[in-house]
Amino acid sequence: MRLELVTVGTELLLGFTHDTNAADIAQALAAVGGIIDRRATVGDDHAQIHDAVSQALERTRFVVVTGGLGPTRDDVTKRAVAELFGAPLELDEAYLETLRERFARFGRGPMPPSNRSQAEVPRGATVLPNPRGTAPGLWLEGTPGVAVLLPGVPHEMRGLLAEQVVPRVRARIAEDGGAARVTLSRALRTSGIGESALADLLTEVEPRLPPITLAYLPQLAGVDLRLTAWRLPPAEAGLALERAAEALRAALGRHLYGEGDTALAAVVLDLLRARGYQLALAESCTGGLVGAAITSVPGASATFLGGIVSYADVSKVRDLGVDAALIERHGAVSQEVALAMADGAAKRFGVAAAAAVTGIAGPGGGTSEKPIGTVCLAARVGPLRRTVRRWLPGDRLFVRERSVQAVLDLVRRLLLEEADTEGGSG
Amino acid sequence: MRLELVTVGTELLLGFTHDTNAADIAQALAAVGGIIDRRATVGDDHAQIHDAVSQALERTRFVVVTGGLGPTRDDVTKRAVAELFGAPLELDEAYLETLRERFARFGRGPMPPSNRSQAEVPRGATVLPNPRGTAPGLWLEGTPGVAVLLPGVPHEMRGLLAEQVVPRVRARIAEDGGAARVTLSRALRTSGIGESALADLLTEVEPRLPPITLAYLPQLAGVDLRLTAWRLPPAEAGLALERAAEALRAALGRHLYGEGDTALAAVVLDLLRARGYQLALAESCTGGLVGAAITSVPGASATFLGGIVSYADVSKVRDLGVDAALIERHGAVSQEVALAMADGAAKRFGVAAAAAVTGIAGPGGGTSEKPIGTVCLAARVGPLRRTVRRWLPGDRLFVRERSVQAVLDLVRRLLLEEADTEGGSG
Repeated sequence: MRLELVTVGTELLLGFTHDTNAADIAQALAAVGGIIDRRATVGDDHAQIHDAVSQALERTRFVVVTGGLGPTRDDVTKRAVAELFGAPLELDEAYLETLRERFARFGRGPMPPSNRSQAEVPRGATVLPNPRGTAPGLWLEGTPGVAVLLPGVPHEMRGLLAEQVVPRVRARIAEDGGAARVTLSRALRTSGIGESALADLLTEVEPRLPPITLAYLPQLAGVDLRLTAWRLPPAEAGLALERAAEALRAALGRHLYGEGDTALAAVVLDLLRARGYQLALAESCTGGLVGAAITSVPGASATFLGGIVSYADVSKVRDLGVDAALIERHGAVSQEVALAMADGAAKRFGVAAAAAVTGIAGPGGGTSEKPIGTVCLAARVGPLRRTVRRWLPGDRLFVRERSVQAVLDLVRRLLLEEADTEGGSG
Repeated sequence: MRLELVTVGTELLLGFTHDTNAADIAQALAAVGGIIDRRATVGDDHAQIHDAVSQALERTRFVVVTGGLGPTRDDVTKRAVAELFGAPLELDEAYLETLRERFARFGRGPMPPSNRSQAEVPRGATVLPNPRGTAPGLWLEGTPGVAVLLPGVPHEMRGLLAEQVVPRVRARIAEDGGAARVTLSRALRTSGIGESALADLLTEVEPRLPPITLAYLPQLAGVDLRLTAWRLPPAEAGLALERAAEALRAALGRHLYGEGDTALAAVVLDLLRARGYQLALAESCTGGLVGAAITSVPGASATFLGGIVSYADVSKVRDLGVDAALIERHGAVSQEVALAMADGAAKRFGVAAAAAVTGIAGPGGGTSEKPIGTVCLAARVGPLRRTVRRWLPGDRLFVRERSVQAVLDLVRRLLLEEADTEGGSG
């Protein structure tokens, strides 16, 4: 089933807001067999909406439209599309009652008159209930084809998409002959290895992947590998994806840290928990970002005790017990100081796992010997201690985010090594 | 000058990647007088690109196309558009030489044969130099109108847009009669006040804003107010925007913390610096996020000394000197403990400005008395000490990010008060 998307909103068209709805709709419908040919974005303008939807229907006879269903006068989508279907707007008394009840229930006072227009429905349209907002979804079916209208508020749109639209599209594809071809993808996440080194590592695997395609997606935390099955029968797509993922896993080894949207910090916390370690941190240039990443994972408090943000050198000495002479001799950004910071954090918090970061995030502070982006990392896991120096050139944001990833990856690899040395008995 | 955008890429169409290019192009061209009627997105498919560009040219005779200019076989934009203009591709020897030199200069070895296709240029097209990458921009002009082709890699696209495309579009609009009408916007940023309270505050100002429109944009750090001048002569747009901003500033008072993309943390650092204070932090539920926000500002190290991430209660006692009995009596999430944490951080780091956060970010840990989202904040600025309890319901990410904003805003307001009490003499 071919289809097109039309997203409505002058703010979208001008780039003031990003079109997350289009991405969500495309992925959800491709996953059940929709083939998305084109997406158009137009402003809150009757003629533009009318033209874009009409042209989409001429090409594919199925269009999903989002945005422009609110109660204000800018919201003209419903009228423009109803006109295309020759369907006059009629007041849906039942829906009006639902709206009034909702306003009463939330104690927001009587429903403003402007909301009344949201209960006006094109004759013959199916109302798709929207429990999260006041504008219902609408499913219009007629001579021009099918038009599905969804509100533009993202969480309302996603609810309607999952609960109302995807099941109907799936059923329609099944009715149309059943031989759905779906587009599915999954991501494998790597860390601690660059894009070209990854490509070298996968030289032998890549030719075995088709019909699955492989895309390299450099992220701050490392390179994600996206595998995609394009327009295959559902069972075949799932099987082919799993086979490809299996081949990649074998080739990637420890460079692979997770799949889907697994966060590196969550993987580190799981490993710490499994090995019975608690963690403390010492951060300089990252200023708290490593702790923020760790504590973004629910349940971190059982494993993460805390940290010292020793932004000033005096704090490295006073709060982490780093020898002032060490800083004098090697500089605050050195592997020696990083290791002493990790030791100090472990000691202060009384834990056997600790990590430290000290570096030059810029824009000032670089030297020819230690240019901006120079970062020294250290980690301790039980008996293992390690420090590395990395050069992560880029702007301040990039240096800091990459430093977080690098130090988390160092802890992860030490935890895996430590498990090896104990034969996995822990 | 009316125009349309076409963005090319199957990954874009399926929502695997977000279309930041479209937003950048729309804003840049609207700001010099382009009127963007529509944007279309199609996959890496010759026929789809051909159709979408051809239809856009029929409607507006000016189209900007991004994506699909790389060296791989997926990149078919150039051929599809060249066909529309009846312009055969010809090897541009000068550009081929530029490419070869670039590969040699970066020591990447000889240029791969696949890059040779990037030196093929539609006959008569103007090559727009792309110093950041290997695919040049192309400006085609002929019977169908004008098509501007830009690579899809965002930083390459942005460079070409600013250096090559915007100046040409501006010149063309001037040639076409000069009466450009531009769409410009600016943002005023508020913190510590909700959307409906803001709307109440602005009741008297709003009717005076037209022709400028006002949009409320709730962000994590507070509500941004976007003022937009739509299709006005440039001088008039600038003046009307400035008048509207002036009216808002007067009404907003201290709720306004900055304009454009100013960060709340940068404002706090500026105020600290101006008043001669250094800052220390004590964080519990935010796990380092406040420090991360502060140190995301270049030059923070002169003012921010460091912090304690006391995620475990034992660290609040040991590292911040919080009385264990206080935690016992009021709970770790209490205004009393927040204030003691701020005091402890100030003392440990020997500074007169400090802030602390303790709260329940969820998903576990909530009680009926202190539900998830309960956050206690404290700040000290010289002689002033203050603590507040807030309820910021939402998911973990939201609670934490809103807590960061709330504590930074508390410090900001205390700094302004402190300046008042000293008559601004500092």
